[in-house]
Amino acid sequence: MKIVLAYSGGLDTTAVVARYTDEGHEVVAAYGELGQPGELEQASARAMAAGAAALEVLDLREGFARDYLGPALKANATYEGRYPLVSALSRPCISAALVDVARRHGADAVAHGCTGKGNDQVRFEVSIRALAPDLDVLAPIRDWQLSRDDSMRLLESKGIAIDVTKRSPYSIDENVWGRACEAGVIEDPWAAPPEEAFGWTNPLAAAPTTPREVVVGFTGGLPTALDGEATDLLGALEALNSIGSEYGTGRLDVIENRLVGIKSREVYEAPGALALLEAHRSLEDLCMERDLLHEKARVEIRWAELVYNGQWFSPLREALDAFVESSQAGLDGEVRLRYEAGRVTTVGRRSPAALYDESLATYGDGDTFDQSDSTGFVKLFGLPVVHAASVREARR
Amino acid sequence: MKIVLAYSGGLDTTAVVARYTDEGHEVVAAYGELGQPGELEQASARAMAAGAAALEVLDLREGFARDYLGPALKANATYEGRYPLVSALSRPCISAALVDVARRHGADAVAHGCTGKGNDQVRFEVSIRALAPDLDVLAPIRDWQLSRDDSMRLLESKGIAIDVTKRSPYSIDENVWGRACEAGVIEDPWAAPPEEAFGWTNPLAAAPTTPREVVVGFTGGLPTALDGEATDLLGALEALNSIGSEYGTGRLDVIENRLVGIKSREVYEAPGALALLEAHRSLEDLCMERDLLHEKARVEIRWAELVYNGQWFSPLREALDAFVESSQAGLDGEVRLRYEAGRVTTVGRRSPAALYDESLATYGDGDTFDQSDSTGFVKLFGLPVVHAASVREARR
Amino acid sequence: MKIVLAYSGGLDTTAVVARYTDEGHEVVAAYGELGQPGELEQASARAMAAGAAALEVLDLREGFARDYLGPALKANATYEGRYPLVSALSRPCISAALVDVARRHGADAVAHGCTGKGNDQVRFEVSIRALAPDLDVLAPIRDWQLSRDDSMRLLESKGIAIDVTKRSPYSIDENVWGRACEAGVIEDPWAAPPEEAFGWTNPLAAAPTTPREVVVGFTGGLPTALDGEATDLLGALEALNSIGSEYGTGRLDVIENRLVGIKSREVYEAPGALALLEAHRSLEDLCMERDLLHEKARVEIRWAELVYNGQWFSPLREALDAFVESSQAGLDGEVRLRYEAGRVTTVGRRSPAALYDESLATYGDGDTFDQSDSTGFVKLFGLPVVHAASVREARR
Amino acid sequence: MKIVLAYSGGLDTTAVVARYTDEGHEVVAAYGELGQPGELEQASARAMAAGAAALEVLDLREGFARDYLGPALKANATYEGRYPLVSALSRPCISAALVDVARRHGADAVAHGCTGKGNDQVRFEVSIRALAPDLDVLAPIRDWQLSRDDSMRLLESKGIAIDVTKRSPYSIDENVWGRACEAGVIEDPWAAPPEEAFGWTNPLAAAPTTPREVVVGFTGGLPTALDGEATDLLGALEALNSIGSEYGTGRLDVIENRLVGIKSREVYEAPGALALLEAHRSLEDLCMERDLLHEKARVEIRWAELVYNGQWFSPLREALDAFVESSQAGLDGEVRLRYEAGRVTTVGRRSPAALYDESLATYGDGDTFDQSDSTGFVKLFGLPVVHAASVREARR
Repeated sequence: MKIVLAYSGGLDTTAVVARYTDEGHEVVAAYGELGQPGELEQASARAMAAGAAALEVLDLREGFARDYLGPALKANATYEGRYPLVSALSRPCISAALVDVARRHGADAVAHGCTGKGNDQVRFEVSIRALAPDLDVLAPIRDWQLSRDDSMRLLESKGIAIDVTKRSPYSIDENVWGRACEAGVIEDPWAAPPEEAFGWTNPLAAAPTTPREVVVGFTGGLPTALDGEATDLLGALEALNSIGSEYGTGRLDVIENRLVGIKSREVYEAPGALALLEAHRSLEDLCMERDLLHEKARVEIRWAELVYNGQWFSPLREALDAFVESSQAGLDGEVRLRYEAGRVTTVGRRSPAALYDESLATYGDGDTFDQSDSTGFVKLFGLPVVHAASVREARR
Repeated sequence: MKIVLAYSGGLDTTAVVARYTDEGHEVVAAYGELGQPGELEQASARAMAAGAAALEVLDLREGFARDYLGPALKANATYEGRYPLVSALSRPCISAALVDVARRHGADAVAHGCTGKGNDQVRFEVSIRALAPDLDVLAPIRDWQLSRDDSMRLLESKGIAIDVTKRSPYSIDENVWGRACEAGVIEDPWAAPPEEAFGWTNPLAAAPTTPREVVVGFTGGLPTALDGEATDLLGALEALNSIGSEYGTGRLDVIENRLVGIKSREVYEAPGALALLEAHRSLEDLCMERDLLHEKARVEIRWAELVYNGQWFSPLREALDAFVESSQAGLDGEVRLRYEAGRVTTVGRRSPAALYDESLATYGDGDTFDQSDSTGFVKLFGLPVVHAASVREARR
Repeated sequence: MKIVLAYSGGLDTTAVVARYTDEGHEVVAAYGELGQPGELEQASARAMAAGAAALEVLDLREGFARDYLGPALKANATYEGRYPLVSALSRPCISAALVDVARRHGADAVAHGCTGKGNDQVRFEVSIRALAPDLDVLAPIRDWQLSRDDSMRLLESKGIAIDVTKRSPYSIDENVWGRACEAGVIEDPWAAPPEEAFGWTNPLAAAPTTPREVVVGFTGGLPTALDGEATDLLGALEALNSIGSEYGTGRLDVIENRLVGIKSREVYEAPGALALLEAHRSLEDLCMERDLLHEKARVEIRWAELVYNGQWFSPLREALDAFVESSQAGLDGEVRLRYEAGRVTTVGRRSPAALYDESLATYGDGDTFDQSDSTGFVKLFGLPVVHAASVREARR
Repeated sequence: MKIVLAYSGGLDTTAVVARYTDEGHEVVAAYGELGQPGELEQASARAMAAGAAALEVLDLREGFARDYLGPALKANATYEGRYPLVSALSRPCISAALVDVARRHGADAVAHGCTGKGNDQVRFEVSIRALAPDLDVLAPIRDWQLSRDDSMRLLESKGIAIDVTKRSPYSIDENVWGRACEAGVIEDPWAAPPEEAFGWTNPLAAAPTTPREVVVGFTGGLPTALDGEATDLLGALEALNSIGSEYGTGRLDVIENRLVGIKSREVYEAPGALALLEAHRSLEDLCMERDLLHEKARVEIRWAELVYNGQWFSPLREALDAFVESSQAGLDGEVRLRYEAGRVTTVGRRSPAALYDESLATYGDGDTFDQSDSTGFVKLFGLPVVHAASVREARR
């Protein structure tokens, strides 16, 4: 069987290459580049040493930003109000790339290296099946239940050395949208995460004490400038990841509900993503009509749940995105972010599309709001509640 | 006519006392104590000098915490995801007290000092009418459109001096849940709020550089201990207002949508409320069943909109609170909050009601999760989306 | 002032023409043709006799069906689960036409003939202001509070005779989507509506006793064929209005909540609209992916509330319609409706886009569903609830 | 092992008794009486002949009505807007009874006779595990995949005769809330269901041609009288099942989305339940405050999804029920239902709690609504939409 494997370069997926090869399968190791740090050359060498028939290194960054991160930003997407969907957004992107590789190589199956208790197995399998119902989807780590020692022995037998002493006690996933860290000592939800659980951001003590401001320019709901210099979402993210990491912003420590029915403790770093989400939301507050803003808040919850649950390639995601996309028309403007040690906040926003109108809002000169309209408004707005109260009172 | 007036001690409501009295009405000035700072004695003297027939000073703090702040905390209530409803929660509480005073004094009407372009007029009027449909509700500031100069002249004619040079350029409202500040230079949404717009919290530069932790104990969703010492919601708020103010936490700078159809720029400080909201939410993350947590997020949005809009005394608020109250049963536990200069974050949580189960979540020894269950789960969970994709593909 | 008036030909709007003319204004009477029955020639004559400077008869049927009824059908729109928005859909359509007439005539204002206690004033005024903020919007009936006798005298003085004895005791509004009837004896919600309150549909006793079937063909969520003959939405509606009226279907008797805060009793007839809504929904049941169908049910509620409340020309309506439109892609197929005396029901549906799959659903031969997948599915699906129950039990 | 089996008396569960017994287990057959028709004596004899150690006949009707049907009626519960949850409501009720039997008999396991592709397996398993995490839950039909011939042979070997020629080609489930019918020829969604698929209700041709009215009295949202005679929910249901069956009302023909990811075609009869749901909803329309009614419509959707999905014993169901219960306080009154051949409709409603107020709603004499309040109301209500439109226009 010809199998395309989602390959990370680590112990587990390298062992999968080795075992599949030993079992007589032809393995195409596919490595997706999503902006994560990594030792690509070393990873490539390992895949080939383990017996891979081919290695595909896929630069997915542009498409990832355009097709996945952009919609997430427009949807202010955070799962359970906290988690910005770091891994959840990358899985469908990688899945589409894996299917593409499988088609080019005429493969029979696509394999992923996820365990059976996380969300990523669902995201990979539902995405791949939706895109290619004819391909088998394999989950060797889940099915074989390989132990770390098993994997080590297998690789040693191929002469592949992985320095386990350097291996992180945590399970890590990274891309340009953020870094997720789980397992190890942070499995105790009462224990504060140790500093070593963080890989991107400065601790507060190391952050600059001088604040700085960054002006994020948006066009149609997407960042198009930083401090007046043109950029795109990917460029803005990289720059804000750098600034935010320096200032020690963007850390999250959460208990979240996995789709498979358990709660887990996760530590995230997403300095760029969270800063953009804050800025984007601030611009919406300035420009978006009230009822649309209020309904969008509900749509955002559903969007995040859906994407968290691996249903990216679903008709519902398309319909929710159509709603969101409509809401972003003309969402142009600028937001001033102030970075201080450990926090980033909006301190100003302006837009040609602003619905904030100083002449209506002001308590000073130039007020154009006719307060006499309020008398009737308040009476009729309150009528149902007042009427209900008086009928209840009358029945007492 | 005998009129009960919601009296604050400031220029506007003192002028109202004076004018009503001049017009031959009998005014009962009612001052509600909700934990705000204030010069009560001076205020009392002014009311009497302006001609009030009586002054009622009402200590509403216990009832405010129990009947309004507790439900808000349980509902994780923030309007538009940001504003913790500082004034919105106090208005129905004050309204109920005003009606009570009106009944005791046999008054014909209740008057409030709100303008015609804010939310508070709605909150007062709907609340008072719901509680006492037979009483007139008067809005003299809105109806007379008194200018500041008019008010000054009126008070001068009574020999009442108000030092206008000391008067804030902002419109301020305060209670133990927080402080709201609007108008003045912050009406420009692009301008960062000046330091003078803040009244409770330290700027970052003045905050301690040494972190400290506080353990908040909850019983049934309400705080009952701080660092192991028994307290109640009011006590916890006062303590956390103090700590948070020192550490410079709890500031908000928002554009929000008023009920009367305009957007406004508001600056809030709510160090205690926001810390408790963070801790409460963290405990829910640990203990609350997933589908309940997800549905509650939607209920919370509606709760906050409703209360923001002045509909406290509505059947819908009662029904939403019944939902929320049900969700808080057994929500006991402790949350570790870490205060650092400018931020407060959850770093640990534990509970006898925790649904986080390390034996299910762990990737280490002692794992009790049967990963083979996932194969069938993923297939059936993904079936509708995969099926939809394949039917669409077949029709291409 | 030059005023464009939404003219119906009835007593009230004819009196408005007369009085405006007497007051020296120039009135352009605009009559919108939306498929309602009516004596257009008589109406025209009256308008001119009352002094109108011009009469514009606008055939809005095509645009009404395309831009208003189509989206409503796709959104399965019923307010409070019952009312198919008969008048609510026509008001923004007429408003757009009035603005168009105002532009052509260089008018200064647009006037409508609504009272101050209904929904239509809101629909007209919000629509017209949104489309033409520079035009005045006038509500003469509301502002003048003309009595029927006043109107009669005014018209008599112009030599215009309206036979009041023939005048309906009800307030009626009609268009091709349905007929609304209110006021008169049906203001008593305990009294069954008399037969005279209905104007389109047969009583059960007069309906045919032989059933008939109609097959409605849909393309992209809109009707495109009846019994295999090509038609469009307007054609389908007219045909099904006729069949449904004969069979005595499509009556509704409801208490509904008006936007202005009161409940009203309304009697509707919408035989064509309700049959199409039933057929459309049945096709969605067959073809729409589950999670999309479930979320759309929530979107439909919001859509109907928004349109009922006169907010057609709002960014939220556009965003909701983008969601709905996305959901209708590929919604092609046929639905068998069976008409019997007094009811119309779906008895069959088929589609190339059907997600119903007999090979998955069957309990007979050819079953392709692997039941062993269910074991793991049920366990993980139920895990949060089961876990929550066991933790609660353990704490007892 | 001692096993409590949910026993129906049919071929499948009788075969399960036989096989379990043959395998050396001790089987307690538990038959739940929920108002379904059935030949109880014959069923009992079969269970014993098949080897059951004991037979428990459980009369669950009172508790079913009180604890399951009452909440469903108050929640206006229909899944996907159509299906009144006939089987979905009975499963948790039966599960609780099975656990009770298991406790009394000291059993080790509970078994149900559901297949692996329906919803009922989920409802039983999640309910039983939530109530008794220590008991095994067995699904022999799903696990053994017994064919009908296998079952027949097994029973013949025990001398048990089941007349297969009389066996329905459909899969039927019945209780006092309704009758569900699936499988057989109705698996073709284009084919109209044959008359034989219906078991309770008259075809239209056999229904009386003379209408009759029934007045349903409600107290606190539950039926307490029919035509002035005191009854309870169970009594009302039985009476309305009888009347509705005679008049040929209460049939449904739907495509619905099962939890396990497939669509199925179902034919239901629920004449009593649907009549009560219509009457209950009509009373709410008359008495329930607008915003509560609107929010409740959303809660109802979630309630029905949750219960359909077998999550009765969940904290979310409790919280939703707390909302619903709060909404029913004081929901007293009467609804006139008119039965005609093939349909039942509300023709009148009255209540001491009515929020319909003729003096506010009337267009006739006695009008107490002040229309001048509407001017300001309409302006401020429409302000956000109008403002958004004008900003957009200005940017064109």
